[in-house]
Amino acid sequence: MNEHIRPVPLEKAYRLLTHGPTVLVSARHAGVDNVMAAAWACALDFAPPKLTVVLDKSTHTRGLVEASGQFVIQVPTVRLLQLTHEVGTRGRASEPGKLEVAGVELVRLGETGMPFVAGCSAWLACRLVPEPHNQQAYDLFIGEVTAAWADERVFKDGHWHFETAGTEWRSIHHVAGGHFYAIGEPMQARSEP
Amino acid sequence: MNEHIRPVPLEKAYRLLTHGPTVLVSARHAGVDNVMAAAWACALDFAPPKLTVVLDKSTHTRGLVEASGQFVIQVPTVRLLQLTHEVGTRGRASEPGKLEVAGVELVRLGETGMPFVAGCSAWLACRLVPEPHNQQAYDLFIGEVTAAWADERVFKDGHWHFETAGTEWRSIHHVAGGHFYAIGEPMQARSEP
Repeated sequence: MNEHIRPVPLEKAYRLLTHGPTVLVSARHAGVDNVMAAAWACALDFAPPKLTVVLDKSTHTRGLVEASGQFVIQVPTVRLLQLTHEVGTRGRASEPGKLEVAGVELVRLGETGMPFVAGCSAWLACRLVPEPHNQQAYDLFIGEVTAAWADERVFKDGHWHFETAGTEWRSIHHVAGGHFYAIGEPMQARSEP
Repeated sequence: MNEHIRPVPLEKAYRLLTHGPTVLVSARHAGVDNVMAAAWACALDFAPPKLTVVLDKSTHTRGLVEASGQFVIQVPTVRLLQLTHEVGTRGRASEPGKLEVAGVELVRLGETGMPFVAGCSAWLACRLVPEPHNQQAYDLFIGEVTAAWADERVFKDGHWHFETAGTEWRSIHHVAGGHFYAIGEPMQARSEP
């Protein structure tokens, strides 16, 4: 855990996901860790903060989420582009050394006991809100965010600072086949008179 | 409808949303149209393509979606930043002229009879997949995409072309309070040997 990681108040946690980044999903059960990439993750509520994430039945991480009832959603940066692609395309079932090959370093944050991926810009620790029908019919999982952190070099005082943080800190947004866009320039709409 | 709007094959429709843009949601019922903004929209499945969108109980558009069983998700561009902000903050119930004030032009696409917002980069016509528990407990709506279109000046042959299309075509990604980021530069992960 580096000195720049700061807690994010829960009422601001939705801001970590609202701009639609591709995320990493990590979970731990019975001493086994895994990490996968998910482009289909989305904020769901403000308070308490909730989110949705789609976890295909073929993924090993899904089993860890179901068994442990908790997971971490974290926001990778441009620096983690290749790592994100690799944990999104390699499978732990067929490749037990997946995390090492992809260069994943896991760290602790707080007292959750969950695995957090080092080098991300933000982390949301989630409690699974069980909804068996959604999980079975749609591969759709709901999490309630119980704690959140961000690296103050890019998210501080409740705001992203992509425009000043250096391009290596930008969030990445997958389209298909390893093709991503980094987030770009800030824009402010005019308030009403 | 302008000459640059082309159908998108359903198997490629997920690519219109996977990078996480803020969207506009439109619906029509009994001759009444409305449009709202939603940052919390997300792809859910490839084939048939499905998506989720969060529609707060306070929104007028939600009633139109529930009554008509269909809605459109469309991707606004930088040019529509202010329009997106205004349809996201004004309410039709208290301001019946909301769409005119915000400068919304509605057009037809295909034979759906649904209202499509002119000037967007992509449009997904959706059939509501009724899930009363999700709608009531989480404000979470599921749509099956029945047809999709994109403006070939920015999405063509199944790919976004933000890097060549001119910055006015970029998708916009809301954070909070009228503060958005435009999508940025393309990045390609290396494939495995």
